[in-house]
Amino acid sequence: MSPYQKIKQEAYDANMQLPQLGLVLFTFGNASAVDRDKKVFAIKPSGVPYEDLKVEDMVIVDFENNIIEGSMRPSSDTKTHAVLYKNWENIGGIVHTHSTHATAWAQTQLDIPIYGTTHADHLAFDIPCAPVMTDEMIEGDYEYETGFQIMDCFKDKSITPEEVPMVIVANHAPFTWGKDVKKAVYHSAVLEEVAKMAWITKTINPEAPRLKESLKKKHYERKHGKGAYYGQS
Amino acid sequence: MSPYQKIKQEAYDANMQLPQLGLVLFTFGNASAVDRDKKVFAIKPSGVPYEDLKVEDMVIVDFENNIIEGSMRPSSDTKTHAVLYKNWENIGGIVHTHSTHATAWAQTQLDIPIYGTTHADHLAFDIPCAPVMTDEMIEGDYEYETGFQIMDCFKDKSITPEEVPMVIVANHAPFTWGKDVKKAVYHSAVLEEVAKMAWITKTINPEAPRLKESLKKKHYERKHGKGAYYGQS
Amino acid sequence: MSPYQKIKQEAYDANMQLPQLGLVLFTFGNASAVDRDKKVFAIKPSGVPYEDLKVEDMVIVDFENNIIEGSMRPSSDTKTHAVLYKNWENIGGIVHTHSTHATAWAQTQLDIPIYGTTHADHLAFDIPCAPVMTDEMIEGDYEYETGFQIMDCFKDKSITPEEVPMVIVANHAPFTWGKDVKKAVYHSAVLEEVAKMAWITKTINPEAPRLKESLKKKHYERKHGKGAYYGQS
Amino acid sequence: MSPYQKIKQEAYDANMQLPQLGLVLFTFGNASAVDRDKKVFAIKPSGVPYEDLKVEDMVIVDFENNIIEGSMRPSSDTKTHAVLYKNWENIGGIVHTHSTHATAWAQTQLDIPIYGTTHADHLAFDIPCAPVMTDEMIEGDYEYETGFQIMDCFKDKSITPEEVPMVIVANHAPFTWGKDVKKAVYHSAVLEEVAKMAWITKTINPEAPRLKESLKKKHYERKHGKGAYYGQS
Repeated sequence: MSPYQKIKQEAYDANMQLPQLGLVLFTFGNASAVDRDKKVFAIKPSGVPYEDLKVEDMVIVDFENNIIEGSMRPSSDTKTHAVLYKNWENIGGIVHTHSTHATAWAQTQLDIPIYGTTHADHLAFDIPCAPVMTDEMIEGDYEYETGFQIMDCFKDKSITPEEVPMVIVANHAPFTWGKDVKKAVYHSAVLEEVAKMAWITKTINPEAPRLKESLKKKHYERKHGKGAYYGQS
Repeated sequence: MSPYQKIKQEAYDANMQLPQLGLVLFTFGNASAVDRDKKVFAIKPSGVPYEDLKVEDMVIVDFENNIIEGSMRPSSDTKTHAVLYKNWENIGGIVHTHSTHATAWAQTQLDIPIYGTTHADHLAFDIPCAPVMTDEMIEGDYEYETGFQIMDCFKDKSITPEEVPMVIVANHAPFTWGKDVKKAVYHSAVLEEVAKMAWITKTINPEAPRLKESLKKKHYERKHGKGAYYGQS
Repeated sequence: MSPYQKIKQEAYDANMQLPQLGLVLFTFGNASAVDRDKKVFAIKPSGVPYEDLKVEDMVIVDFENNIIEGSMRPSSDTKTHAVLYKNWENIGGIVHTHSTHATAWAQTQLDIPIYGTTHADHLAFDIPCAPVMTDEMIEGDYEYETGFQIMDCFKDKSITPEEVPMVIVANHAPFTWGKDVKKAVYHSAVLEEVAKMAWITKTINPEAPRLKESLKKKHYERKHGKGAYYGQS
Repeated sequence: MSPYQKIKQEAYDANMQLPQLGLVLFTFGNASAVDRDKKVFAIKPSGVPYEDLKVEDMVIVDFENNIIEGSMRPSSDTKTHAVLYKNWENIGGIVHTHSTHATAWAQTQLDIPIYGTTHADHLAFDIPCAPVMTDEMIEGDYEYETGFQIMDCFKDKSITPEEVPMVIVANHAPFTWGKDVKKAVYHSAVLEEVAKMAWITKTINPEAPRLKESLKKKHYERKHGKGAYYGQS
């Protein structure tokens, strides 16, 4: 039995949920789960169809991108996961997809405006679009730099990964995260739905206003604030 | 056996229909059924996934928002249901969802124009968008005030809940109702379909005219008027 | 055994296909099949859910709208079917739905432009939108007048029901027909797909040109002309 | 046992995947697989519903469009397949569909702009729209000329079928290909998804810029270049 069995199972379960939730076509996505004590994460192998995927295929990688266990090549986006795990200490899982509507917004190079409470129930900010990377970053260590591009975007906007569990990377696609990988999958599905609603909103009324402050705060706080009263305690 | 078994079963059945009809993602919705004699209603517990839901989980609440039976916390929107049941005496069930197209219209802050007979078969008015609430209402007893915002909207437009069984609340999402909760679910599905058609109509022809009076009346009356001849009598 | 068993079975089968093809929500549609020798047609009873429908529920009606056999009330649109069967001698089946995209086009009051060969494979003309009816027609014998509105539209445009097996009625929804009801169902599905493609085309490029004459003719003729070479002979 | 059993099976499997992937309605598509040694290909018979299709129904045709084996009439688009196999020596399979979003783009007569990495992961160019054919071509040997129209488009744009495995033909629909027919089916699904994303992108932001050179190259090369590091080697 691998010492990493728990995160391999978690990463496997999360990866298998992506096609079931309609978030990936073919192999266009990957999920990973971290073990903070061992400082490693389990991630999907690159290019393996979901229907062939097995728990033991998950590759164990450390935060410097070294393969610790596993015979397959990990996802081509592994370095992005490694950078985020290393620098954002509170995240337990990461998901990357090319889900249709979130990816279309990434292609517009625009933040997704906070138009309603479906959005505010999960985050009280526009969903940030990390800017297009420079040629140097792209031609250099691309996937590594993608992680820094995401973190720099959060610094520039003065937001934290705890309060904004998702990003779209310009011309690329979304990344989401959470306290564990199950929550990261949940955030990917929420992002896709919010992105779809925002598209429809904008094509009906290009002048639709963003949510007012009090309503943003109310909905976010009733689920995530100190006096939260959503769900079972 | 609970004295509220009948409405618990009705509320459970209605809640379970919502994901089957494609109207909710995860836990983004709730349905309730009223017992007018006992002056209580059964409502979904807050944040419980539909696949885990059981009939006995339904929470019994009175019109002043007191929990009468049940060990779980009721839906965070319970006060809105309570206000509507208390004030609108002819409604037997209420459904709240964040269905994609109806919610997108709510985000535009616009009424859904009555463009066709699919709409007029169910109501002869634009689907009203209750205006954005004031900061005082939002920061105060929010879900309670949401009920009043809906009722005030109906008063301002001189329409009744009997003739207009649905509303979209600006920047939030739809509420629907009916003589029983089964009918309220039906109205949620109709609203989502009408909202989708209206979006497509508007993006093809932004100048599309609203339905003329005679056609509104004809279609509404043939299903709901004195001489109705739709369905089996 | 009813002397109308054959058309009852055909009408039943056609009605049951409508929800399977995603063309109707709840009871928003009806299909009928004609017996030209007996001058009657079988049609769905009004407002009966598809899941409860049985072959023997089909109602037999003549071309003057008299019920010949059956204990249930026929579809509220029965008079429209009767008028079309009486006046258009070559049609063997009729389908009426409120399918999403075709209905949205009907709500725009515009013909569906012939943008491509998917359309021209089935008809070489724009899909006509019968104009909004006058108040007199609507307030009079509405469903009967709907049949005449469709026929007048075809006369005004100098097209025949043989070469154009579908229409959208302004602010209402589509009707389709064919040599038998199976073909009428097929045309409803084709119309919905062509309507969806035309919507997407128009929102990408509002100036998209209509199909040129030679291509219209080529695609229509290779399936329907004298020297047709599509399908197995 | 037919000497063409292998390609008949491959063509059959590929054809059956098309409805499963949501790429065809009714019979609106066809797939073929080539045997380069025998200089023949196996293709779907014309107009046969997918649910009735059998492996032995596949028709064997040579590059001059002669039927070599099979009792049924081959797809009406067979000549286009023959021309492409004869002239493009590295392709092993071809798929033609009328998938919704790719066909809508074809109807706009516009290339599909390369807006993001989902696109660049598969080709580093806009997806070309072959121009509308002349009346002479359409009225002449239409399906044969369609093949030449596609090839001329590639010559004019200085692109090769190896680097651009797909095209949309103006006012018609897409054709895709690959080293084998399985890959051609894959490219049809990718094209449909990329076309959908590009539509959404354009309706959100009509000014959305195309992908920058460095990012196009990076994503294409990491999957297809010399130092490719996507997938398992």
